Amino acid sequence: MMKIVLDCYGGDHSPEANVDGGLKALEAFPDLHLILTGDEASLRACLEGKKYDAARLEIVHAPEVIGCDERPIDAVRLKKESSMIKAVRMLRDSDEVAAMVSIGSTGALVTAALTRIGRIKGVIRPAFCPILPTMNGGLVGICDSGANVEVTPEHLRQFAIMASLYMENVYGVEKPRVALLNVGKEAEKGDEIRQKAYGLLSETSEINFVGNMESRDLLSGSYDIVVADGFSGNVLVKTTEGTALELLKKLKKDIYSRTIYKIGALLMKRMFMEEKEFMNYQNYGGSVLLGTEKTVVKGHGSSKATAVFHCIEQAYRMELSKLSSKIEDVIMKYEHYEY
Amino acid sequence: MMKIVLDCYGGDHSPEANVDGGLKALEAFPDLHLILTGDEASLRACLEGKKYDAARLEIVHAPEVIGCDERPIDAVRLKKESSMIKAVRMLRDSDEVAAMVSIGSTGALVTAALTRIGRIKGVIRPAFCPILPTMNGGLVGICDSGANVEVTPEHLRQFAIMASLYMENVYGVEKPRVALLNVGKEAEKGDEIRQKAYGLLSETSEINFVGNMESRDLLSGSYDIVVADGFSGNVLVKTTEGTALELLKKLKKDIYSRTIYKIGALLMKRMFMEEKEFMNYQNYGGSVLLGTEKTVVKGHGSSKATAVFHCIEQAYRMELSKLSSKIEDVIMKYEHYEY
Repeated sequence: MMKIVLDCYGGDHSPEANVDGGLKALEAFPDLHLILTGDEASLRACLEGKKYDAARLEIVHAPEVIGCDERPIDAVRLKKESSMIKAVRMLRDSDEVAAMVSIGSTGALVTAALTRIGRIKGVIRPAFCPILPTMNGGLVGICDSGANVEVTPEHLRQFAIMASLYMENVYGVEKPRVALLNVGKEAEKGDEIRQKAYGLLSETSEINFVGNMESRDLLSGSYDIVVADGFSGNVLVKTTEGTALELLKKLKKDIYSRTIYKIGALLMKRMFMEEKEFMNYQNYGGSVLLGTEKTVVKGHGSSKATAVFHCIEQAYRMELSKLSSKIEDVIMKYEHYEY
Repeated sequence: MMKIVLDCYGGDHSPEANVDGGLKALEAFPDLHLILTGDEASLRACLEGKKYDAARLEIVHAPEVIGCDERPIDAVRLKKESSMIKAVRMLRDSDEVAAMVSIGSTGALVTAALTRIGRIKGVIRPAFCPILPTMNGGLVGICDSGANVEVTPEHLRQFAIMASLYMENVYGVEKPRVALLNVGKEAEKGDEIRQKAYGLLSETSEINFVGNMESRDLLSGSYDIVVADGFSGNVLVKTTEGTALELLKKLKKDIYSRTIYKIGALLMKRMFMEEKEFMNYQNYGGSVLLGTEKTVVKGHGSSKATAVFHCIEQAYRMELSKLSSKIEDVIMKYEHYEY
């Protein structure tokens, strides 16, 4: 039996999307036990009339909600009765609870996870690792993408190790190709942090470091993992999503501008639907936090049931593969390094 | 008469594209005088059979070429006979030469420009400002996008001032909306540099600061200028270009996968051509270096004649509007600030 706690509030489609995603996961994974946090009456209402194995579903009442505009540190400190903080506390306090999933405020979740959940032995800084689809049908993970706006070369090496093990164990990618985000391909590019990180990554035998990557090549399919500081990693991920969304929007608008385009688009309807699905981050789960003792997965605020399901699936697979202890094994080999 | 020197080597389509772009500019601007640098015999061959006003075209022989894989500092020091360094030296030494355009190695050009060409009085660090098209038909400038991988809050303020004046004077944008690239909209987001820059930008009355921007919103049309450190600015620009290119490539591939899609695409041919033109950076000129005493414009390495023409046009308009002295006027107001 694997116990995962699901924060049911804080998203655009909460709590319905959370509950429906949770039920989908219960159906997919027979040994999964879910704990939902949130307003009990509302959650019961969402469950009404739906079929599920009640023995594997629990509700823990949490009347408060953390909004996206609240200062993370205040929210974590003051909103102890919120669905998110109750979930974090359960994850911290119960040996039985293996992981948590939330689609609420990123800032609050990071703050709560970093201050309340322990780190894996040897890990200096946990980091986010979202996944994007590449143009040849593969996936690429970006680590870090927002948990640490400032980093050292040693942090970057740890991100590379954690993300490598993640891609290998959860997505079955063999010897994931790791690149360092930089402003050019040459080893001496970027600031001192990047130059030193290049050296550290090169001498780390547990990862398959393939050199610097220019952001232009993110979706090319030539890389499985991109290592970055949280600031530029965040820019990388959000610019990619933003550009794809804006282009699709423009395409749609232009199609509606002339009848002949509409007819053409009708013939291509299935293709456009497939492109849209391909670009839909809801199909790729959330952003996992790597480096915490227990698994934390953060989904998009706009997640619908499918996205919530994929987030739970990620948490489930991370636990199943015993990712944390694998990360610890490798990280501890480099523990004598200064940080 | 305005004299501009055009480095004719270093691009993928050099020297033909450079020469053709130059001739186009001579035709468009009757008071333009062009100096081409590069291998004289090859340049003469490119000019053969073409119509142009020979009185306004000069060739300065420069037998060497700087490659993109050369270490900038070595290239600048050792390749004194290269087309780029000869152009830079002419810009430095001649009062008559107002500006230079190059599509060669960015690293070498930055190094040469920063070490050989003086800065505008008060400017701490010159910065690159490329332009991208937004989804509502406007333009957005990103400053810095690669000249300075490390910055201070005061640098960011100067980038904002320079880019504002650029958008206003060269593109006719009134009160350009300036945003600070950050990982969230709230004033307290990001590292200390971003937080302090937010304060500085807010109190600078000469610019229209509208707050933080998340990279997702770059193309939304809500901003005219985005201020960033050169590292994340570079990621922002290159990710946008890369994502757009990869998506178009995928669309094309998918269209060819089924006959019905091909028929549909045929009906939409004109639309797709327009999308492609819209996305084609060649139509938007190059990346201007703001803050040097004399104008330097850097075009994409893959520039064709049209792109080279637009780069010359940018240099021409910058000079025509006396941008440098306008930048100096505003920057000097804040000269007492520490840096």
